[in-house]
Amino acid sequence: SSGDGIGPEISTAVMKIFEAAKAPIQWEERNVTAIKGPGGKWMIPTEAKDSMDKSKIGLKGPLKTPIAAGHPSMNLLLRKTFDLYANVRPCVSIEGYKTPYTDVDLVTIRENTEGEYSGIEHVIVDGVVQSIKLITEEASQRIAEYAFEYARNNQRASVTAVHKANIMRMSDGLFLRKCREVAENFKDIKFTEMYLDTVCLNMVQDPTQFDVLVMPNLYGDILSDLCAGLIGGLGVTPSGNIGANGVAIFESVHGTAPDIAGKDLANPTALLLSAVMMLRHMGLHGQAKKIETACFDTIRDKKVLTKDLGGNSKCSEFTGEICRRVQDME
Amino acid sequence: SSGDGIGPEISTAVMKIFEAAKAPIQWEERNVTAIKGPGGKWMIPTEAKDSMDKSKIGLKGPLKTPIAAGHPSMNLLLRKTFDLYANVRPCVSIEGYKTPYTDVDLVTIRENTEGEYSGIEHVIVDGVVQSIKLITEEASQRIAEYAFEYARNNQRASVTAVHKANIMRMSDGLFLRKCREVAENFKDIKFTEMYLDTVCLNMVQDPTQFDVLVMPNLYGDILSDLCAGLIGGLGVTPSGNIGANGVAIFESVHGTAPDIAGKDLANPTALLLSAVMMLRHMGLHGQAKKIETACFDTIRDKKVLTKDLGGNSKCSEFTGEICRRVQDME
Ligand SMILES: CC(C)[C@H](C(=O)O)[C@@H](O)C(=O)O
Ligand SMILES: CC(C)[C@H](C(=O)O)[C@@H](O)C(=O)O
Repeated sequence: SSGDGIGPEISTAVMKIFEAAKAPIQWEERNVTAIKGPGGKWMIPTEAKDSMDKSKIGLKGPLKTPIAAGHPSMNLLLRKTFDLYANVRPCVSIEGYKTPYTDVDLVTIRENTEGEYSGIEHVIVDGVVQSIKLITEEASQRIAEYAFEYARNNQRASVTAVHKANIMRMSDGLFLRKCREVAENFKDIKFTEMYLDTVCLNMVQDPTQFDVLVMPNLYGDILSDLCAGLIGGLGVTPSGNIGANGVAIFESVHGTAPDIAGKDLANPTALLLSAVMMLRHMGLHGQAKKIETACFDTIRDKKVLTKDLGGNSKCSEFTGEICRRVQDME
Repeated sequence: SSGDGIGPEISTAVMKIFEAAKAPIQWEERNVTAIKGPGGKWMIPTEAKDSMDKSKIGLKGPLKTPIAAGHPSMNLLLRKTFDLYANVRPCVSIEGYKTPYTDVDLVTIRENTEGEYSGIEHVIVDGVVQSIKLITEEASQRIAEYAFEYARNNQRASVTAVHKANIMRMSDGLFLRKCREVAENFKDIKFTEMYLDTVCLNMVQDPTQFDVLVMPNLYGDILSDLCAGLIGGLGVTPSGNIGANGVAIFESVHGTAPDIAGKDLANPTALLLSAVMMLRHMGLHGQAKKIETACFDTIRDKKVLTKDLGGNSKCSEFTGEICRRVQDME
């Protein structure tokens, strides 16, 4: 789905750059915005679902969500529909884009299906409410395995489990135990454990000490956004969601920016880098590297940049510059 | 309690500086380290409890905790014993102490008694665990009122409630509703609401946009440490715990640093600034300002600094320099 607001423009940009890089991708555009299914339940349109079941891989632009009161969050619905159990966000400092930090190069891996997002809540008595954080052995093991496999496949040296097992001894304790067990099978990857609060403190003091971080749902929600902030925000941060049965959806996690939509002013970087993650996920490392390099070089060069990146160029000009660089690499 | 490790040295430093500032404080040293009470329950020694019940105000150095397996966390035990419902951490950039940020000037106010720290957990079936986050109207209202009163008493312009009520609709929803209600009674203070993930992202991009932040327990655990990181870590961050019946305990939240204990190398800044918070809490604004200014001036001057602050001086020399400046202000 190309998305709402600036979605179509930045999707077009990505497709142009992919064409320039001769990336062998057949695009099938499908609208994923939820519709009311039989029985009144919100669901992803069947066409989109079928297309994903067939191709397994999706790239998604920003969606207006929820569209109206009572409409579900598209993020939550997509996670559920495709059992997207891992949210992966590589956060890499972009040379030339000014932030308080340099040399950030880490990856947050967030469990995406349970924990504080169980949706189970009760009123106990008037004025007393409980929300349930659900942690299972199965989901903890699955995300731990994904994190270590990701580390191995992406030449990462270490995995850190982020937790509060000093407070939530049973739930975070279970998560942590599973991480420890899985670590035993990945002797080539260093394993460490850290409290969430300590990670946050150390992260803003020196993010370069971190590598791959794996954690339960809410902690991942927080840390993935925090780390995006370190490298310049959601406009330059890619994101991938890994699901069961080989499904994966890559997406930019910024908003639809309705104020600049249709004006050729949007910055396609986050969606482009998400598409680069997608190429790597498909094993197309050559094209991935080429596009990523062209994008980073363009930003470092500072000549053709969109407004939010500090320049005066249009989305199409920025895109053209990246295409030119990709073609020069042939 | 002066504390363990470097505790006695930095406590002595604080007392010297208070003496120089003629702060009218009568110190009563009590050991708070938990002992086994009748029935085998861990408790604060009666002498310490009685002293607190009488004086209402405590200053606490770092404690070795837990002392041994099975020993409770002193933090948790003190919170419980004195119903310390609010943890307050002013985070102010210190000129001359290099961090990636300048002009940070915010306060985190953390609900300290419930939420994710309820301690209620269950195994549902093998491999499935739940932890309960408990939110009550009473505790939410109490912390919201404290935050707004703090803002008013400390000339702060705004209070932001930090939450994930989009996910935990009932629990964080209740917390947020109480904040909104209390805000109605403080029309002089601006009220805003923000998602925790958004706060984290914006915090590392531009912390100067924040003022007073109020939030449930776990979010406060995270954000208070994150914000400490922004200004240079736990060695320069003061902390205060406000309890029922007028009790308040101020403390440095760093560790006991056993490696440098007894060597006159420790940095007393966090404990000193906590003691300054204590003076303000007692209405002794004149002495508070004097000591704070002397401390900040000493750091800005860079001539007499402990090692962790980037200098070569001893704890006693740093302390002496602050005393000298305090006396010069007479
Ligand atoms: C929109 C919201 C449901 C979502 C979340 O809390 O997971 C968002 O913050 C995210 O990280 O995708
Ligand atoms: C030591 C631990 C119990 C504590 C907490 O999680 O609250 C600590 O992180 C704190 O912030 O005081």
